[in-house]
Amino acid sequence: MNRNVYIDNMPREKALQLFMDGLQSNDWFAKTTEWVAVRESLHRTTAEPIIAKRSSPHYVASAMDGAAVKSTLTFGASESNPVDIMASDYLEVDTGDYVPKEYDAVIMVEEINFFPDHMQIIKAAVPWQHIRSIGEDMVEGDMIVPSLRLIGPYELAAFITAGVETVPVIKKPTVAIIPTGTELVESAQIQMSPGDIVESNSYMLMSLAQEWGAAAFRHEIVIDDREQIKQAVREVKAQADVIVICSGSSAGREDYTASIVRELGELLVHGVAVRPGKPAILGIIDHKPVIGIPGYPISAGLIFNLFAKPIIYRKMGISIPEAIIIEGSISKKLPSPMGVDEYVNVNIARIGAKLIAYPLNRGAGLSSMLVKSDGVVHVERGQEGLQTGACCNIVLNRSSREIENSMITLGSHDLSIDFLIDMLYRKQGIRLVSTNVGSMGGIMALRRKETHFAGLHLLDEKGDYNISYLHKYLPNEKYLLVNLVKRHQGLVVAPGNPLGIRGISDLAQKGLRYMNRQKGAGTRILLDYLLKKEGVAGAQINGYNREEYTHLAVAAAVKNDACDTGMAIFASAKAMNLDFIPVAVERYDLCILTELVSQKQLDALLATINSSEFKESVSNSGGYELDLSGQIIYSHNL
Amino acid sequence: MNRNVYIDNMPREKALQLFMDGLQSNDWFAKTTEWVAVRESLHRTTAEPIIAKRSSPHYVASAMDGAAVKSTLTFGASESNPVDIMASDYLEVDTGDYVPKEYDAVIMVEEINFFPDHMQIIKAAVPWQHIRSIGEDMVEGDMIVPSLRLIGPYELAAFITAGVETVPVIKKPTVAIIPTGTELVESAQIQMSPGDIVESNSYMLMSLAQEWGAAAFRHEIVIDDREQIKQAVREVKAQADVIVICSGSSAGREDYTASIVRELGELLVHGVAVRPGKPAILGIIDHKPVIGIPGYPISAGLIFNLFAKPIIYRKMGISIPEAIIIEGSISKKLPSPMGVDEYVNVNIARIGAKLIAYPLNRGAGLSSMLVKSDGVVHVERGQEGLQTGACCNIVLNRSSREIENSMITLGSHDLSIDFLIDMLYRKQGIRLVSTNVGSMGGIMALRRKETHFAGLHLLDEKGDYNISYLHKYLPNEKYLLVNLVKRHQGLVVAPGNPLGIRGISDLAQKGLRYMNRQKGAGTRILLDYLLKKEGVAGAQINGYNREEYTHLAVAAAVKNDACDTGMAIFASAKAMNLDFIPVAVERYDLCILTELVSQKQLDALLATINSSEFKESVSNSGGYELDLSGQIIYSHNL
Repeated sequence: MNRNVYIDNMPREKALQLFMDGLQSNDWFAKTTEWVAVRESLHRTTAEPIIAKRSSPHYVASAMDGAAVKSTLTFGASESNPVDIMASDYLEVDTGDYVPKEYDAVIMVEEINFFPDHMQIIKAAVPWQHIRSIGEDMVEGDMIVPSLRLIGPYELAAFITAGVETVPVIKKPTVAIIPTGTELVESAQIQMSPGDIVESNSYMLMSLAQEWGAAAFRHEIVIDDREQIKQAVREVKAQADVIVICSGSSAGREDYTASIVRELGELLVHGVAVRPGKPAILGIIDHKPVIGIPGYPISAGLIFNLFAKPIIYRKMGISIPEAIIIEGSISKKLPSPMGVDEYVNVNIARIGAKLIAYPLNRGAGLSSMLVKSDGVVHVERGQEGLQTGACCNIVLNRSSREIENSMITLGSHDLSIDFLIDMLYRKQGIRLVSTNVGSMGGIMALRRKETHFAGLHLLDEKGDYNISYLHKYLPNEKYLLVNLVKRHQGLVVAPGNPLGIRGISDLAQKGLRYMNRQKGAGTRILLDYLLKKEGVAGAQINGYNREEYTHLAVAAAVKNDACDTGMAIFASAKAMNLDFIPVAVERYDLCILTELVSQKQLDALLATINSSEFKESVSNSGGYELDLSGQIIYSHNL
Repeated sequence: MNRNVYIDNMPREKALQLFMDGLQSNDWFAKTTEWVAVRESLHRTTAEPIIAKRSSPHYVASAMDGAAVKSTLTFGASESNPVDIMASDYLEVDTGDYVPKEYDAVIMVEEINFFPDHMQIIKAAVPWQHIRSIGEDMVEGDMIVPSLRLIGPYELAAFITAGVETVPVIKKPTVAIIPTGTELVESAQIQMSPGDIVESNSYMLMSLAQEWGAAAFRHEIVIDDREQIKQAVREVKAQADVIVICSGSSAGREDYTASIVRELGELLVHGVAVRPGKPAILGIIDHKPVIGIPGYPISAGLIFNLFAKPIIYRKMGISIPEAIIIEGSISKKLPSPMGVDEYVNVNIARIGAKLIAYPLNRGAGLSSMLVKSDGVVHVERGQEGLQTGACCNIVLNRSSREIENSMITLGSHDLSIDFLIDMLYRKQGIRLVSTNVGSMGGIMALRRKETHFAGLHLLDEKGDYNISYLHKYLPNEKYLLVNLVKRHQGLVVAPGNPLGIRGISDLAQKGLRYMNRQKGAGTRILLDYLLKKEGVAGAQINGYNREEYTHLAVAAAVKNDACDTGMAIFASAKAMNLDFIPVAVERYDLCILTELVSQKQLDALLATINSSEFKESVSNSGGYELDLSGQIIYSHNL
């Protein structure tokens, strides 16, 4: 095996400095200018000062609707001594009309009495009144804007007015992206085998580059073959200002990027002390920057942001737009090794006076976390992570208004929560952030006052739901327990139920592969309750310790033959065309901490649950009963 | 004449409400969805929740580079009891590789010793360790994002990963813009007659619409003919969601928009109590909004922002992005009539602890003011304007970082200041805002501590420059007087000097048309000094009271035969290919209030003035002497 064992662990700033210095000494940052038609110049950056080519107005113009006169003819006019001016001695003008040389004032239409052959005025005109001089707006030779200015709608219009028809702008740097990896396929529409991965990183990186103002193009996927990757680099080199090689998600034996950069140019950095994204590669080939990007999407995005963004902005001669940074406190301990800069995606919500940052799953392979992320907490090198409740700066991905309009629910997940998320935003302008921590996790989050509400379906030994748990864990809180849905829980099995599973008692069958839910999940508690009833021990079940975190994930495991069955709600089986053996109907309630939500939020939430659109959507999913939906089950201390 | 005399004066909110209600009752805000290829969906808005079409990973995958094993084979392994696993019992895998059903754990490569026919491990594998389950990232059926979400780089990539190939997005509303006006021409490249105006408003409005996320197209210019304008409305109607009719800059007899809207549909509003922009028109034709936009560029931009922006965003189902609002104090009294909402463009700079807003010229015809504007102060209806120093909210057009990096100079203008503006920004990242208020205006601004520095060329009776004025008006301040340039002042005349003007003494010639500078301008003070020397009285000069505000404007007036001569610097005559009769060389200094500028700003300013690039640029303009340039002429209280 030809593994790249010698990966460095260079501090981020040093790596960037080396890269910048290398590019500087290759004169890569030299400004490149191109001329574009002014009408195509929106959002480009001026490369030189833009100078007015003609004055505006380019003639002496009337500033009013009225009549142009020679002011001497009006002298002495007053209410008691109206002055008549013959038609041959004045010129009717509208605003913007040319005022010929023989006139030196304009009288407003409101101050004129017109007669067939003359007009009468009762006030003398001051010389040059209501006359716009040449170049009042812009004068030929005026600098309209200096260099390195963004051309917005107003600049563009001013250029046109000033007779500027083409403008020198900074040429967009072109980023070429080469996706590599034998496991990659171009699209999920084709038949995919196990191990195939749809190539999407290149589109993420192209989109980022475009947002920054660069142009981007993509080479087709190159398999893990050193010669072919080298060939691809050679192909894109001529048209590209920046070459990006995306590794396959394999960081292992098929990673040829570093050795190719070393062969064709200069390898500056291989391995940066950041997480995620350590195996990043920085180099220079033919005076152009080359970046080797790790395969996991979160690593890819981070490395591109850390190393491509600053060089692209500097090449364009403009500053990176200001990040919006807010201060929050971290909801749970965030351990991080001393030696690396770590970037952690978080959700954010305001809970009372505090903005709380909820760290998302740190798996670098989870592209969904980039979508969920509201912001990023940077745990700096030299820090040993953050303690629960610690203050942290968060670089926002969303507007702070959107953050302030957010509610959060930590607890059990149900598909109906997705309808709630969609409808609350669409109808009420409230963004609902939902994090699945299971029902017991939800109870604990309520107890710590870290969530506005929580979805719970916790069965107690008497066969009742939720209330006894709340009594135990939230003895003093004020809360409202509202039913969201009742739902069918059951065993999800392959179509046709090939193993002939009839119910809970069959789970201990030898060879049957079960998929459980995580500890604290209401579904696991339900399973344990039912197993106890049937006299089956967890240890008898193959896969009792194999855990998934959602209903859909359990169903997906069944569908893909990673297990034979697992307990989940009906809707998840239906979503994947699987069979379903019902075992229970359970109550899924929302426990709302009334002190943490405003009346407006509470009203919006209840109105949404009680709306016919919500009920229809849930009902169409199947496996739900809605007779209690929206009803207040219980209230405490209110 | 057929003037629209009956223009209403409707409050802004009421006008918008009428417009919104009218569109609502015409069901215009109904969401329109279109499907686009996911790879073309960047920056579009989801019209429906986007659901994962396949799980990612869609197979059980290795989370590490290493070997997949059946965990039972590893049990009991320890340092003292290494376990050998035969090649047939394990499978080498890289991160992301498929882990077939027969294996239930992955051992990291770092923990393996490989031999030709077996591998050796010293630690047992926990079942399911280092294995990514199906759907770990996203599960088929998961909602990736709800509706009405902006699709950014990360969303786009996640959609591709989840097998989503087309996405439902909000269709972009299409704005059709019809420029009208017989005085309008398409481009300044053609020969323009007096009275011709280059049509640029339509491009400003199209660019604004595009920034908001709409599509826009433009009808060609329509002359002021009621039938032709009506025909244009009919032509664009089918493809447009919003119809915008731009009036010519004439607000007078040629304005047919209101009557056409009344004829073809419903006229809701004609005349809004805002300034600038009063004659705005709002109506509905064939269930579509029609907006009549006044001709002056600042009015056009304001009315489009006030009435097109909110309906376009609402049609798209998204909120208008948050404005950045800062608090500042206004540098001078801002009178405003009680009955209107007035929007005033301002420059902004930090002077010590205060952010000061400097109102720009309020002429609605000055497109250059939109370019210069750093923000807008809204003087609300019911307010009688703002007193000098009053606190005001400013909606920023620029980032607050850019505002904080600004220096301001109020005083006399010189062309070399433009080089300073360009170079300070390009080389030092400092934005220099320059407002021409003449030398005496600059002295007063220094006295009130409203400017970081001022350009001065004030001649005293002894023939010296600036210092005696500073002694008189700034007796206690700390300042530095630095020479920027010495420059040639003279009489600008038409090429060939057709009137044979020889110097100052000729200005009183009968019939000669002079153009003066405003009171307080150093050039006017120089003229008065020279006239006194020659024994000529200002009253003897035809045009002594006709004022322009810049050298270039005086030169432009000569070039366009609006006058025969005026006093200005050589560079302005050169810029317009005019002849120049030198009358004096004067010192143009910068007076810098050292308490208001940081050492960094001072260093940057002096370094720029002393740079060879600055001196070369100035020297190439002609008419300058640079022997004192950058030298400290005088310092006071330092």
